[in-house]
Amino acid sequence: MELTEKDIQPQMTRRRPGQSAITTPRNEKDRVMIQSGTEFGVTLGTPIGLMVMNEDQRPKDYGNQTMDLYPRPSHADYTYAEKYGVKASSGGGRSSARETIGRVAAGAVAEKYLKLAYGIEITAFVTSVGNMHMFPPTAEHPTPSQNPEFLKLLETIDRETVDKFLPVRCPDEKASEAMADLIAEYKEREDSIGGTVTCVIKNVPSGLGEPCFDKIEAMLAHAMLSIPATKGFEVGSGFGGCEVPGSIHNDAFVRAPDAPAAPDSGAARNGLPRPKLTTKTNNSGGIQGGITNGAPIYFRVAFKPPATIGQAQTTATYDGDKEGILAAKGRHDPCVVPRAVPIVEAMSALVVIDALLQQMGRHEALRQLPSLKNRTMQPSDNGVSMTQ
Amino acid sequence: MELTEKDIQPQMTRRRPGQSAITTPRNEKDRVMIQSGTEFGVTLGTPIGLMVMNEDQRPKDYGNQTMDLYPRPSHADYTYAEKYGVKASSGGGRSSARETIGRVAAGAVAEKYLKLAYGIEITAFVTSVGNMHMFPPTAEHPTPSQNPEFLKLLETIDRETVDKFLPVRCPDEKASEAMADLIAEYKEREDSIGGTVTCVIKNVPSGLGEPCFDKIEAMLAHAMLSIPATKGFEVGSGFGGCEVPGSIHNDAFVRAPDAPAAPDSGAARNGLPRPKLTTKTNNSGGIQGGITNGAPIYFRVAFKPPATIGQAQTTATYDGDKEGILAAKGRHDPCVVPRAVPIVEAMSALVVIDALLQQMGRHEALRQLPSLKNRTMQPSDNGVSMTQ
Amino acid sequence: MELTEKDIQPQMTRRRPGQSAITTPRNEKDRVMIQSGTEFGVTLGTPIGLMVMNEDQRPKDYGNQTMDLYPRPSHADYTYAEKYGVKASSGGGRSSARETIGRVAAGAVAEKYLKLAYGIEITAFVTSVGNMHMFPPTAEHPTPSQNPEFLKLLETIDRETVDKFLPVRCPDEKASEAMADLIAEYKEREDSIGGTVTCVIKNVPSGLGEPCFDKIEAMLAHAMLSIPATKGFEVGSGFGGCEVPGSIHNDAFVRAPDAPAAPDSGAARNGLPRPKLTTKTNNSGGIQGGITNGAPIYFRVAFKPPATIGQAQTTATYDGDKEGILAAKGRHDPCVVPRAVPIVEAMSALVVIDALLQQMGRHEALRQLPSLKNRTMQPSDNGVSMTQ
Amino acid sequence: MELTEKDIQPQMTRRRPGQSAITTPRNEKDRVMIQSGTEFGVTLGTPIGLMVMNEDQRPKDYGNQTMDLYPRPSHADYTYAEKYGVKASSGGGRSSARETIGRVAAGAVAEKYLKLAYGIEITAFVTSVGNMHMFPPTAEHPTPSQNPEFLKLLETIDRETVDKFLPVRCPDEKASEAMADLIAEYKEREDSIGGTVTCVIKNVPSGLGEPCFDKIEAMLAHAMLSIPATKGFEVGSGFGGCEVPGSIHNDAFVRAPDAPAAPDSGAARNGLPRPKLTTKTNNSGGIQGGITNGAPIYFRVAFKPPATIGQAQTTATYDGDKEGILAAKGRHDPCVVPRAVPIVEAMSALVVIDALLQQMGRHEALRQLPSLKNRTMQPSDNGVSMTQ
Repeated sequence: MELTEKDIQPQMTRRRPGQSAITTPRNEKDRVMIQSGTEFGVTLGTPIGLMVMNEDQRPKDYGNQTMDLYPRPSHADYTYAEKYGVKASSGGGRSSARETIGRVAAGAVAEKYLKLAYGIEITAFVTSVGNMHMFPPTAEHPTPSQNPEFLKLLETIDRETVDKFLPVRCPDEKASEAMADLIAEYKEREDSIGGTVTCVIKNVPSGLGEPCFDKIEAMLAHAMLSIPATKGFEVGSGFGGCEVPGSIHNDAFVRAPDAPAAPDSGAARNGLPRPKLTTKTNNSGGIQGGITNGAPIYFRVAFKPPATIGQAQTTATYDGDKEGILAAKGRHDPCVVPRAVPIVEAMSALVVIDALLQQMGRHEALRQLPSLKNRTMQPSDNGVSMTQ
Repeated sequence: MELTEKDIQPQMTRRRPGQSAITTPRNEKDRVMIQSGTEFGVTLGTPIGLMVMNEDQRPKDYGNQTMDLYPRPSHADYTYAEKYGVKASSGGGRSSARETIGRVAAGAVAEKYLKLAYGIEITAFVTSVGNMHMFPPTAEHPTPSQNPEFLKLLETIDRETVDKFLPVRCPDEKASEAMADLIAEYKEREDSIGGTVTCVIKNVPSGLGEPCFDKIEAMLAHAMLSIPATKGFEVGSGFGGCEVPGSIHNDAFVRAPDAPAAPDSGAARNGLPRPKLTTKTNNSGGIQGGITNGAPIYFRVAFKPPATIGQAQTTATYDGDKEGILAAKGRHDPCVVPRAVPIVEAMSALVVIDALLQQMGRHEALRQLPSLKNRTMQPSDNGVSMTQ
Repeated sequence: MELTEKDIQPQMTRRRPGQSAITTPRNEKDRVMIQSGTEFGVTLGTPIGLMVMNEDQRPKDYGNQTMDLYPRPSHADYTYAEKYGVKASSGGGRSSARETIGRVAAGAVAEKYLKLAYGIEITAFVTSVGNMHMFPPTAEHPTPSQNPEFLKLLETIDRETVDKFLPVRCPDEKASEAMADLIAEYKEREDSIGGTVTCVIKNVPSGLGEPCFDKIEAMLAHAMLSIPATKGFEVGSGFGGCEVPGSIHNDAFVRAPDAPAAPDSGAARNGLPRPKLTTKTNNSGGIQGGITNGAPIYFRVAFKPPATIGQAQTTATYDGDKEGILAAKGRHDPCVVPRAVPIVEAMSALVVIDALLQQMGRHEALRQLPSLKNRTMQPSDNGVSMTQ
Repeated sequence: MELTEKDIQPQMTRRRPGQSAITTPRNEKDRVMIQSGTEFGVTLGTPIGLMVMNEDQRPKDYGNQTMDLYPRPSHADYTYAEKYGVKASSGGGRSSARETIGRVAAGAVAEKYLKLAYGIEITAFVTSVGNMHMFPPTAEHPTPSQNPEFLKLLETIDRETVDKFLPVRCPDEKASEAMADLIAEYKEREDSIGGTVTCVIKNVPSGLGEPCFDKIEAMLAHAMLSIPATKGFEVGSGFGGCEVPGSIHNDAFVRAPDAPAAPDSGAARNGLPRPKLTTKTNNSGGIQGGITNGAPIYFRVAFKPPATIGQAQTTATYDGDKEGILAAKGRHDPCVVPRAVPIVEAMSALVVIDALLQQMGRHEALRQLPSLKNRTMQPSDNGVSMTQ
C-alpha cells in the first residue's frame, strides 16, 4: 500500500495539544516520521516504525515536592504506586494521555487501508459537554437512536464538517457554541468537565466480528474503555434502548437498495456485491449477534472530567499519614472530548481492521473449497461475507 | 483447591430457565458434572472439564418453514448467514444465549478461588426494567454514584438478599414488584423489554489491571459486551459522571481505616496488609488509570429487549425477494435481566481472576529481588500490590 | 466444508493402541463422534466438538502402593508434583500420551481442508529405530538431504504406501523388518527404544510463515516438541547440513516446470498460478527466511525410548527419603514411533493451516487495494502468495 | 529492578559484527540506549524502550542491478517477494540477521532478573564447526549426554571461560584452533560453513513449563528455530538418545544434596527450599513431561552455512526467465556460530522468564488458599514449585 507521513499527520494534528484557547496550552507539533516498513512510499509488509519527538516538555511542572507527596485525586498516581512499587517523578509518566499519540498514528495507517479497500469512513464528533447535549432526550425520542435527525446526521457527517465546528467538534452551531462557553467557564474556574463522543463507521462489510467472546461490540468496548478518562460505552440504542419495547426496538429487514459499493474503493473496482438486506431502523447499531450486518455502526463513549485541575483539593499523602492541599501545576485540558475525537476514530479503525483481516482469512479459505452439493446458500466472492 | 459440583451448581441454578412465570417456560435442570481436572474433590492443576446435558429441547419450534425463510429481526440469523454462508436449522444454534451456561460454570470456579483467597464478593442485581429505575436521576443526585443510598447499598448487598427479591432480583421491594408487573405486561402482549444490571465487586486487592490497552475497566467492558443482548457498559460514575465538574467528581484520598483483610480469607490468614489509602467518594468505581485502588468496583450493563417475540413482525426473506410476516415460536424470556444477574457475576469473576494471576506473577517475581538502595518505597508482601 | 466422522476416523485408527504385537496391548477402538459444529454433514463455521470414549481402562494398574511412593524415572510424575503440588492417582493423568488423541482428531479436520483447497499432502514415516536407520549417513551422502534416493522418496511417498509397512511404518522392506525385530527384542526384555519420524508436506503454497518469531520452521518445531517423548527436530538438511559448505548447501533457483496446481484441488479449479521458481536442490526443506517457497517441506523428529518399562529400576521416593525398586505395571509401547506417525502428521496440519489462514487474510486484504504505480511487481491472485 | 545500559551492553558487544578477522568486517559499535521505562537506574514497571543506532551501513552493496534481478539462493529474497509482493532494495531488509540485536538486548534484561532472583546462569558455546566436533560420537559415548566429560563441562562452564576461546567460542583449546582454521579456510574460498551451538541453563527452579502445547522444550525449540539460519534443535540426549535403550536412558531419581540455593540470589536470601530429588544421569536435559525438574537444561542448535557467499553461483531471475551468475557483495560472516552464542543465550532467557512468570502467578495464587485437609502433599513456599 502506498503510505507516507502525509497519510498519518492529519490525525496527529487533530489530536495535538495547543489547538485552541480551550485546550491545554502545551504546544506540541507532533510531527510523525516513518522509520521503517516502507520504501519509496510503499509498505513492505514488515512492521512500520513511527517516531514523534516531544518538544515542549516541562518536567519541573511535575516533580515538585507537593506532587511527590500527594497522589493526585482520581489520577493514576496512587494505583501505579500500588501496582509497581515505584513512581515516576515527572508527569504522569506512562499514565499520561500522551500515550494516545501512538494509537492515533497506528489508527491512521489502518484507516487508509479501510478507505482504499472498502470506502470505510469513520467519523467521531462531540455529542455532549457537561449537561449540554446535542440530542437531548425528549418524550418522543427518548434516545437518539429513535431520533430521525440523529440517524440522518450519521448518514451525512464527515470529518471536514466536524472540523468546521472547532474548537468543540460538535457539528451543530448552537450546541457547539454553548459547549465552548461551558468549557471556557470551567477553565476559568480551574475546574474541569466531562462529555461524550459519538462515532459512526460507514461502509463496513457484513460478517465482521466473532460470535462469542470477541463480538465486534465487545472489541469496540474494550478499545474505547482503554482510552484514558473513559467511563462508559454504548452501541446502537444503548442504555436508552433498554426502555423501548422489543416490538419497536427490533430492526425489521428490507431489501437493500441496489447501491454499488463505495465509489473509488477496491470493493467497487472488484465489483463486490453488497448485502441483500438492510434494516428499516438501526437500533442494532449495525451489529447483530456480535457480527456486522452492513448498516452503519455507531456508538457513544463517556469521558469523565479530567482529574488534574488547578483548584486546591484536600487529600492525603501516599502513606496516609498527612492530609494536605494539592493544587496541580502542569498544563491540562479542562475538557478532553474535542481532542478525544481522533483517538476514538483511531481505536475504531484498529478494531475494524483486526476483525476484517480475521474474516478475510476465513473468506479466502472458503474460495478454495468446492461447492457444497444440495445447498441453496453458496458463498459469493464479496471479499469477506459468504452468502448471496 | 477443593472443588466439587456443589461449588458450581448454585449459579447454574440461578441462571437456568423456567425459574418463574416471567421467564422462559423452557425447563432445564442444568445439572453440571465435573469430567476431569479434579480427583477426590481437589483440583489437579490441569484443565477442568465440565458437562451439562440438555433435557428440554424442542428443535421443531425452530425448524419451520417460516423461520427458514425469514431471518428474525435484530437476531443473529442474518449476520451468521453472512459470516459463515450456512445456517443451522434448529434454534439460534451458536448464537443462542444457552452458550452462557459455560460462562456461568467457569465463573463459579473462579469465584470460589477469589472468595477463599481474598474474600472477594461479586454481587449483581437488577437496577432497571424498561423505564422503571431503582435509582432514578434526581436534581440532587443526577447519577447513582452521587447518591449516598446507592453507595450504601453497594457496601451491604449480597446474593442472598438479591434472591429475596425473586423473580426480578431488584433488591427494593416496591421497585421489584413494579418491575415484575411491567415484565408480566410485556409477556402478555407477546412483546419484550430491556433493563440494566448493576454489579459490585468488593475486596479486590489494589494493583490489578494493565496500564494501557488492558485496563481493568476495558477488560470488564469487553467481557460484558460479549454477553448476548448487551448494548452498553458504564463504570463508576459512568455516563452521568460526564455531567459532574472535576472538582466534585475527583475522589479525594483519605487514610484507610485499619480494617483487617476479609475474614476467613487467605489474605487474613496470611496477614496481608490492606491499602494505606482509600477515597472519600467513589466516582472512580474502584479503578484509577485502569488499575484497581482497593475500593469497590461497580458498573452497570444495559440489556436490550429480547429480539425473539411472539408478536407478528413484517420483515424480508434472506434473499430480499419477499416481504412477509414472522411470528416467532420457541420459548423465550420477555426480559433477560433477572437471569442475566449470574452471567454478569460470572464474567466479572473471570476478568478479575485473569488480572489477579497476571499481577500475582509480577508480585511474586518482585519478592525474589534485592531491596532497592535509597528508595523510600519498598515492596510489601501483600500478595499483589507492591507498596507500603 | 463437508465433514463427517469418516474424515476423522482413519487417522484415529492409525494412532490407536493395540494395532499389533509390538504396540501396547491396551485395546481402544477410539471411535470419534462429532458433537457440534456440523449439520447435515456440513461445517457451520462454529466450533466443532468431538468426543472419544475410553473403553479399556485399568486404573488399578497405576494406583498401586509402589507407584504412589515412587515417581517413575524420566516420566512426568515428579515434575507434575513439583508444578501442581498434587498428583493424580491413576495413570499419568494429564501427562499420558492419550492426550494426543485430540491432536489427531483436530489435525484430521485441518488436513481435509488442506487437501481440498490446495492438494496439500502430509506423510510421515519412520526413518530409524534405535541405531537402525533407513538412510544411514555415508561418505558420499553425509546427510539424507544430499541423498537423491531420499529426495525421490519424498516426492512419491504417501500414507497408503507407508501403511504397507506395518507395524513399523518404515517404507523400506528390509529396514522395516529389521526394525520390527529390534522392537520385539526390546519388548521381550521389558525395555524400550527410541527412533525418528520423518515428515514431508507437499503442495504447500509459497508465502506461508512469519518473518521473525513465527517462522514456519519455528512453529513446526514448537508443535513437534510439544508431542510427548520428543527430543529433537531438524528441518531440511538439519544437523547434517551444518557440515556442508554454503556453496553446495545453497539451493540454486531454476524456472519451475509449468505444472498445474494439484489436480482436484481448489487451487486447480480456480486456476491459481504456481510459483515461477523452484530450487535445484532442497537443503532448505521448502523454507527460506522462515517462509515457504513452494518446494516440499520436510523435517525429522526424534522420539526417546518410552520411560515406562517393565524392567526393575532403582530409584527414590517422592520425598527422597528412601531408595527402592520400581517395576512399572500398565501396558506400554516398547517404541512409540509407529504410532507417532499420525500424531506428527496432525501437528503438521495444524501448523500449516494456521499459517495459511494468516496469509490468506493478508492476501485477501491485498486484493482490494489499487495497483501500485510504477512497480514491476504486482500481486497475483493465487490465493496466498503475492507476486507474479 | 536496578537497570542501566551497563547491564545490557556486554551481550550487545559479544554479538556485534567486526569482532575478529573471521567475522564480517562490517563494524558496528552497537551502543544501546535506554529510552524509557527506567528512572534513576530503576525500572518503573512500564515498557522499556531501547535504541541502537546503525553506524556502518553500505546500502549500495545491496542495491545493484544483479541483486535486483536475482534472488540470492537459500536466502529470504525470493520468499519475501512471494509473501509480500514487494522487495526492499537495500540489504536483506527485515530478513537481515541484524534484527537479532533486539533479541539480545531484551534477553539481557531478562537475564539480569533471572540471575538476581534465582542465580540462573545461561551459557552457550560452540560445539561444532563443519565436521569438527568438540565431542565427536564414540563407540562408548554415542551421544554427548552419555559422555561424563560433557556433563562435567555443563556444570562448570561460564561466559568468561567461553570468551577465552575467542574468536570461535568453543571452550577447548585444540578444537577451537582447528575450528578457527576451518572457518578461515572457508572465508578464503569465499564460501561458508555451518556449526552447532550448545547451551546450558543452570539453577532453573523446578515446575516451569506447561504440560501440553507449551512444554518448555517446545518453547525453547520455537525460540531457537526463530533465529535466522537455524536448521535443528535437540534437548538433553536429543537425536542420539533415540539409540539408547530406555533402561539406560531413564534418569533414576536420587535424593538431592542439601545444597543451598545459588548464593547471592533472591532464592538464597529468602531461604527458598531446593527440590528434594535430583537425577543420577541427565538424559532428560532437566525437563520431564515438558516441565523442569531442577537439573540443568541443555540443548543444541544447528546453524546452516550462511547463504550469502562471495563465490559465483548460477541461479535464476525472479521471473524465471533468465539464468545468470550471482556473486554477492555485502560483508558477511563465513560462519555464524561464534556470534550466535549470545543470541541463543538471549532467546533462552526470554523463554525461561516467560515460563517463570506464568508459574509464579500460579504459585502466588496457591499461597492464599487454605491447606487441603488429609493431603500428604502440601505446597511449600519456594517461589514457584509447590511440593515439599
